[in-house]
Amino acid sequence: MDLRITYHVHGADHRAAAARAREIALEQTVELPSDALSADVAARIVGRVEAVEPLGEGRWSSVIAYHPAVVSGEIPQLLNLLFGNVSMQAGVVVASVDWPPELLASLGGPRYGIAGLRDLTGARGRALLCTALKPLGVSGAQLAERAYRFALAGIDLVKDDHSLSDQPPAPFRERVQRCQDAVQRANRETGGNTLYLPNVTSGVTAMLERAALARRTGCRGCVVNALPAGLDGVRAVAATGLAVMSHPSLAGAFFHEDHGIAPPVLLGDLFRLAGSDAVIYPNVEGRFTLSEATCAAINARLRAPLGSVRPSFPVPAGGIDVARVPHWIDRYGADTIFLVGGSLYAQPDLVAAARRLVEAVRALSR
Amino acid sequence: MDLRITYHVHGADHRAAAARAREIALEQTVELPSDALSADVAARIVGRVEAVEPLGEGRWSSVIAYHPAVVSGEIPQLLNLLFGNVSMQAGVVVASVDWPPELLASLGGPRYGIAGLRDLTGARGRALLCTALKPLGVSGAQLAERAYRFALAGIDLVKDDHSLSDQPPAPFRERVQRCQDAVQRANRETGGNTLYLPNVTSGVTAMLERAALARRTGCRGCVVNALPAGLDGVRAVAATGLAVMSHPSLAGAFFHEDHGIAPPVLLGDLFRLAGSDAVIYPNVEGRFTLSEATCAAINARLRAPLGSVRPSFPVPAGGIDVARVPHWIDRYGADTIFLVGGSLYAQPDLVAAARRLVEAVRALSR
Repeated sequence: MDLRITYHVHGADHRAAAARAREIALEQTVELPSDALSADVAARIVGRVEAVEPLGEGRWSSVIAYHPAVVSGEIPQLLNLLFGNVSMQAGVVVASVDWPPELLASLGGPRYGIAGLRDLTGARGRALLCTALKPLGVSGAQLAERAYRFALAGIDLVKDDHSLSDQPPAPFRERVQRCQDAVQRANRETGGNTLYLPNVTSGVTAMLERAALARRTGCRGCVVNALPAGLDGVRAVAATGLAVMSHPSLAGAFFHEDHGIAPPVLLGDLFRLAGSDAVIYPNVEGRFTLSEATCAAINARLRAPLGSVRPSFPVPAGGIDVARVPHWIDRYGADTIFLVGGSLYAQPDLVAAARRLVEAVRALSR
Repeated sequence: MDLRITYHVHGADHRAAAARAREIALEQTVELPSDALSADVAARIVGRVEAVEPLGEGRWSSVIAYHPAVVSGEIPQLLNLLFGNVSMQAGVVVASVDWPPELLASLGGPRYGIAGLRDLTGARGRALLCTALKPLGVSGAQLAERAYRFALAGIDLVKDDHSLSDQPPAPFRERVQRCQDAVQRANRETGGNTLYLPNVTSGVTAMLERAALARRTGCRGCVVNALPAGLDGVRAVAATGLAVMSHPSLAGAFFHEDHGIAPPVLLGDLFRLAGSDAVIYPNVEGRFTLSEATCAAINARLRAPLGSVRPSFPVPAGGIDVARVPHWIDRYGADTIFLVGGSLYAQPDLVAAARRLVEAVRALSR
């Protein structure tokens, strides 16, 4: 079965749109005009334009089928095939992808996924809550104290803010030890199962060292800024055995109406296939710009049946108000992790506010 | 010295633009409103808005100064600070960056750069020529035969097409051995110094294995698709001792007029700081969309004095016509590598066409 990519392109008419699709099929594979190719390469390697349908207002939907061997089972070459060179041309959107089973099997996807993260946290039949340790600039001891309070309150996942790396105020090694210890102490007191997820994002080699250190410290999961680290970094970190919550830093570069990779493809399919067990995205109503329909489509792509690939948790974030969590559970369903950060920090009593939120979420599952 | 980032933002008036800049300074560091911060964190960590100047038509240039410790000397956190979260908001461009010397020193930059690549190729006082082995779909033996011919003709750098990874028609290991042998054979016959640059782009671990294999096979340089691999992958590959020519696959996602990272910052500063000895970009007049002024600005950022960081070669590409190479040498100068691909393949006699091009370039240096 072929890898079918639906591109949205400009075109004055059907003929022009079909020609544009044919150009994309050449550009993304052989980078030569078709008259410079053998019949064999033209037939086997160049993408085949299978459909060109009008979308209105001079935009067209074109389906290009590629032999999956072009990807060679690797995330970087997959990104390159989808959008590499055409990113530098105007008006091209990767709108959706149909995945052949053998490519799905070679990419692999999440090791834990929704069911695995429920096992790790013991959270069944309800939405999960996550919060972030912040801000950058305070000490590891201060972050650990916050982690302890959030864990006492019963927040399921307490993660490093995505801008915490290895800065002097809270160096990675010390921070991870302190925060993991603090969360374990709270778990012993409450009998709970809060997980601390350090942000291991770094350069290629340092990231794997940090993941290994987090494992030795007893962490079961971590955060990776997937695009700054390189999307395959998610797969590499997941291979250490840690559950991975991927952060969408930089992803907005791809989210233009008439140019880019559609959010459900990038944050849904691609982040999931790279091995993310949970994917943070900027929810509507927050500080960012995705529509509710787009958010729902990301949720759908993270959870939909996809060959042998496990479903991943959507993690709406980016300014979710504490008071709105029940509304969003109603909209998005129980297979969701809600990341509530700033609006918790705005409460006068952090623990009490976190505990009220935890109780509200648990009450909804009864 | 601070890291000064110039963002272009929207704003109805000076006050609105200044408020927008302040929001960015918070978003990119602490992700909390300023009233939730201690005075110490607000002063040390949050970016400081130093200037807000009108650009006309509701756009403003704002300079934000960050303490370089926020970056912790790492490429992924640098990308995250520059554009991570604000990528998901509308109308923000990273227009330019002033780099503090200690950050430049910790990032490092190219190991070879312009002078080092001239040493490796023996090409002095003139522009260099590069061509690509293509297309994806032919065998390693066929690619090697092409490499041999290009090397016989005296092309300085013969690189794998950026879509060649480890696909069945020309698996990496066999292809690299064949192509490197072919180029060495041609060099013995001509007394020349053509370098073969395999594309080592892959996942985190496979990429370093491929780089090591290329080194053992005798290669002195390689190609990395910097953004699909993760920009830090360039640094990791460069650390193996190979010279790195970076390819701009995916970069166009960032190149919107009112949103993204300006091409001279991304392909100039950032690709150079990550360790690229040469950076391919899509030249004007080709199949892509950059203006000549933007291309000249990329050249300038790759070659400009930058603390302890060596200058890198610009590699204009993407549809450079053989006949236009002398024109572009005149425009861009001798410290340029011209990547001529498709228009060589369009010639009836590949070797004769390549040799004419080599002679034309060498004649210009006399």
